[in-house]
Amino acid sequence: MSANTTMRRSVVLKRRPHGEPGAADFTIQEDPIPTPGAGQVVTRTIWLSIDPYMRGRLREEQTYAVAIQVGEVMTGETVGEVIGSNHSEFVAGDIVVGARGWQTHSVTDGARLVKVPRDGAPLSAWLGVLGMPGATAYAGITEICKPKAGETMVVSAASGAVGSIAGQLAKRAGARVVGIAGGPEKCLWVQDSLGLDACVDHRSRDLRTELKAECPDGIDAYFENVGGAVQEAVFAQLNPFARVAMCGMVSQYNEAVFPPGPNLGFVVGKRVLIQGFIVSDRPERLTEWRMLAGPLVADGGLIYREDVHDGLENAPNALAGILSGQNFGKLLIKVGPDPL
Amino acid sequence: MSANTTMRRSVVLKRRPHGEPGAADFTIQEDPIPTPGAGQVVTRTIWLSIDPYMRGRLREEQTYAVAIQVGEVMTGETVGEVIGSNHSEFVAGDIVVGARGWQTHSVTDGARLVKVPRDGAPLSAWLGVLGMPGATAYAGITEICKPKAGETMVVSAASGAVGSIAGQLAKRAGARVVGIAGGPEKCLWVQDSLGLDACVDHRSRDLRTELKAECPDGIDAYFENVGGAVQEAVFAQLNPFARVAMCGMVSQYNEAVFPPGPNLGFVVGKRVLIQGFIVSDRPERLTEWRMLAGPLVADGGLIYREDVHDGLENAPNALAGILSGQNFGKLLIKVGPDPL
Repeated sequence: MSANTTMRRSVVLKRRPHGEPGAADFTIQEDPIPTPGAGQVVTRTIWLSIDPYMRGRLREEQTYAVAIQVGEVMTGETVGEVIGSNHSEFVAGDIVVGARGWQTHSVTDGARLVKVPRDGAPLSAWLGVLGMPGATAYAGITEICKPKAGETMVVSAASGAVGSIAGQLAKRAGARVVGIAGGPEKCLWVQDSLGLDACVDHRSRDLRTELKAECPDGIDAYFENVGGAVQEAVFAQLNPFARVAMCGMVSQYNEAVFPPGPNLGFVVGKRVLIQGFIVSDRPERLTEWRMLAGPLVADGGLIYREDVHDGLENAPNALAGILSGQNFGKLLIKVGPDPL
Repeated sequence: MSANTTMRRSVVLKRRPHGEPGAADFTIQEDPIPTPGAGQVVTRTIWLSIDPYMRGRLREEQTYAVAIQVGEVMTGETVGEVIGSNHSEFVAGDIVVGARGWQTHSVTDGARLVKVPRDGAPLSAWLGVLGMPGATAYAGITEICKPKAGETMVVSAASGAVGSIAGQLAKRAGARVVGIAGGPEKCLWVQDSLGLDACVDHRSRDLRTELKAECPDGIDAYFENVGGAVQEAVFAQLNPFARVAMCGMVSQYNEAVFPPGPNLGFVVGKRVLIQGFIVSDRPERLTEWRMLAGPLVADGGLIYREDVHDGLENAPNALAGILSGQNFGKLLIKVGPDPL
């Protein structure tokens, strides 16, 4: 942490990364902490969320959101504290979620800021289980996967911010739920702490056989976060009328050229549904999810795990880590002191 | 046609074809024309439908329907005339659709037989525009593609039994509709007779560029009948929120090992829906479609084209032809005299 309390620090894109992103692709810029103009709110960042989708923002070509340009501040969800406001709805000391950017302070018009109660969940939870990752899991499960009692659902990246919630929601729906995660430590946590029925290590020698052993009746729904060999193994075992929620394919985000995918002949014969989705298309889902999940988080009915790195300057390497599965749980950067 | 009127002829699977099926994979068996048992109906076949899905029935592995076993009569929809009945709802002379099999006569319990009016469309139409292919187009368009005015829809195998109806329905919905077909003759018919906005020849040197020229605003919906290079070209040009009705992938039905498919990363970023379907899952759609399409066919509001081969013994080679795109329009075998 910088000791300089009059300056703002921002992580700016220096060059587009090829392959794995790292600290050398970014630069830290300093400028004075902004003061709020008419109608504006200035916040200091407490927590910054690091998510796999950010890699897509670093690509030249535009995907679903505008690419970050060289020289621009990197984007990202934050929880912060209001330190200055000319906005009728916010006063200094308010805790808010919704400001964006890899920076110690941000200035906005307040339109997207949501006040966070101080007496509820830990503030960091608003970027994970109660934030975009949690709402993403909720949308994918309720709108696409629709797991039912008697069915088998598989979730990849099952120990991650999205996958861990998706798996628990599918268990609540009564399905047999099998996670896929990287390494024995994550797999153990997915089974013992999240309560999933099984977890298969995607690094194991024969993923397909191990998955089959845990899904003896085939796979009725799949929550896809990974792609690649994991996708191939799951798709081969989908049942007729299976639903696939395409949330992400993190295994290939660093690739310049994407590898071929599955032959889609099975989609016809098995009447499979493959549906891509992005939770921000329907912001009302986030509000709805926060209302539903708040009590569950408070009483321990939804388990989550955080992987916290300290200091804004570590954000680039943290992003590299999440793309190679080095994180264990929701990845967060602690940018400033947490008042709770 | 056999001159022997006391014997039934049936096309029986002799061996599973490798690659393109042909006459050598089948044998013609003769047995006496059956007489109806209690509650049974005997029909003589007039028209037999040849459809690409039949190739899947010849594979060892089961897809959505049970595979035909060596020694069994090949399956297929027919229009026939009742020649004997112990069923209260059918009398000799009734024209019926719904009996199955590559054979000159069949005996059933009548449960799936539907009486065809003699004063409406030509009898053969009940296997094409008013039959399973028409209902398939209807289901894919109304339930999955959902083309709207201002959108662009692409349909592959656009001169075929399903594609030709799908394209016309999308035009009726107000979309710009671009067909893909094999060769200039088919493309001309798709534009001039079906009234589609354009048709791209999939044999052309640069399918992707030609398709792009006809779809300057990208592709919002795709009715997939072909797979392979056609699928690749279309998928690359899908717009956000595009819908893909996966009806068939005829380009690979003769392949022992299916080639890799598209990388599915775009499905996430563009929130694409890819949905496989088989019309027989919802038989009520066929009834509904016949009710809706009957008047359209009668007044020329729905154009269709038939490709008729004479004689049951030509069914195997006709099946080979439809898999390589040699047919031009709905492929039919005329098995016996048509009373209309």
